[in-house]
Amino acid sequence: MENSKTAGIIIIGNEILSGKVRDANSYFLAGELRGLGVDVRRISVIPDETEIIGREAVEFSGRYDYVFTSGGVGPTHDDVTMSGIAKGFGVPLVVHPQIEKFLAARFGRSLNDAVLKMAEVPEGSEIIFNDAMRFPVTLYRNIYIFPGIPEYLTSKFTLIRERFRTSAFYLRRIFLSAHESEFAESLNLIVSENPEVQFGSYPVTGDGEFRVIVTVESKSESALTSAVNALKDRLPREAVVRIE
Amino acid sequence: MENSKTAGIIIIGNEILSGKVRDANSYFLAGELRGLGVDVRRISVIPDETEIIGREAVEFSGRYDYVFTSGGVGPTHDDVTMSGIAKGFGVPLVVHPQIEKFLAARFGRSLNDAVLKMAEVPEGSEIIFNDAMRFPVTLYRNIYIFPGIPEYLTSKFTLIRERFRTSAFYLRRIFLSAHESEFAESLNLIVSENPEVQFGSYPVTGDGEFRVIVTVESKSESALTSAVNALKDRLPREAVVRIE
Repeated sequence: MENSKTAGIIIIGNEILSGKVRDANSYFLAGELRGLGVDVRRISVIPDETEIIGREAVEFSGRYDYVFTSGGVGPTHDDVTMSGIAKGFGVPLVVHPQIEKFLAARFGRSLNDAVLKMAEVPEGSEIIFNDAMRFPVTLYRNIYIFPGIPEYLTSKFTLIRERFRTSAFYLRRIFLSAHESEFAESLNLIVSENPEVQFGSYPVTGDGEFRVIVTVESKSESALTSAVNALKDRLPREAVVRIE
Repeated sequence: MENSKTAGIIIIGNEILSGKVRDANSYFLAGELRGLGVDVRRISVIPDETEIIGREAVEFSGRYDYVFTSGGVGPTHDDVTMSGIAKGFGVPLVVHPQIEKFLAARFGRSLNDAVLKMAEVPEGSEIIFNDAMRFPVTLYRNIYIFPGIPEYLTSKFTLIRERFRTSAFYLRRIFLSAHESEFAESLNLIVSENPEVQFGSYPVTGDGEFRVIVTVESKSESALTSAVNALKDRLPREAVVRIE
C-alpha cells in the first residue's frame, strides 16, 4: 500500500502469560499507531526467555517497518530483553556510556552491578533522549525498546510519537440494528468489489439500539466514500441506525 | 516439567490490531488456565487473514498441548478462522451436520448461505456440546475454536474448563518497600539456586506502602517454601512489608 508503514508489537512478560497482570501496553500502542497511520500487523506476548525474545525480535525486525517491545529492561534476573535481542542478532551486549552516566547521576552511591545492567544494550544501539524524559529510549535497528510499566511506556512513546506519523487511515462506522446474518451476503459482495477498503463487522451484545457495528476504513478518502455509499445502498434501509 | 501442560492463545481480529477494541479474551484465558495449572507460553494477536491464521494454528498446534483461538467464526467476510485452520493443515472445509441442525433450529426461515458458513469446519473436527451451551465449541486436533465476543467465550470456556485441569501452581507474593536495585543481586542469586521455581519482580508505581512485588511460583510446594525462606533470609529485613 502506498505510504503504508507496518509495525509489530512484542510484549515480554511472564506476568501477562500467567494472567497476573492485564497487558495495557499493546492496546495503547495499537491505538496510537493506528492514529498515526501505521498498520499494526501482529502482537506477540512471550515469556522472559532470551532465546524466544531473540528469535521474535529478528523475525519482527525483518518483517515490519517498526518494532516495539515492552518489558524486561530492569535490573533483575527476569529482565532479559536486551540480552535476548543481542543474542538474536548475534551481537554482544555493550555498556552504553550515556546510559551509564544517567544511572550514575540517578543512583549515586547506591549504584551496583544489578543497576549497571540497565546500561547494557545490543552493540549498535542508539538512544533517543529529550529533556522531558527521565530515562532514554533504546533503539536497535528498527526496534524501539520500552519498559513494561505502562506509565513509563505511555509517557515515553508520547514524546517520540510524531516520528512515526504517516498518511492517515480514514474510518467510518455504520451502526446496524440487524443481525449479521441478515446483511452478511450484501456486505461480502461490497467487500469483494472494494479491494482498497478494509471492512470489519462486530456484533454487539446487550439490548442497545444497534446489534452490529460495521467499520469501513481506507487510506484513500474517495475509495472510502464510494464503498460506504455502495454499502448503504445494499443494506436494508431500516437497519441503518446511524453512520459516523 | 512433570505434570506440566502448555497452551498457546491465538487472538484473531483486525479490531484488536487497529486499537479499536481492547482484547479481553487473552487475559481471561491466561488467568483461567493458570488457575487450572496450565502454562500459557505465548499469545499471538493476528489479522483476519487465512494464510496467517493457518500458519499460526499449525505452529501452535505442534508446540503446545492446547491451543485456543478467539474470533473469526461468524457469517461475514472477515470470519476466516475455520478456513484458515483448514488451509494450514491442508484439509477441506466440510459442513458439520450437527452444527447445521443447530443453525436450522435457530435461524429457521432466515437461514441463508452466509449463516450456513457457520456450519463449516476443518474436516476431522469434533464438536463439544452440553445443554448449557447455545452453540457448540469446535475442536480440531488440539485447537479449541472460540468466538471473539467475550461473553460467549467466557461462558463457553467455563463450561469445559475442568477438562484442562492439571497439577496446580503454588504461588507466594512478597511485597517490598525497597527499590529493585537494592535487592536485585540477592534475588538473582536465589533465582540461580532454585531452578524448579519461577521468580518475577514487578515494580509498582505510586505512593503505596510497597514498591515492588516479587512473585515466587512452583508446581512443587516444598521447592516453593524453601525458595521463599531462602529469599526472605537474603532480603533486607525492613524491606519486607508482607508475604502472601
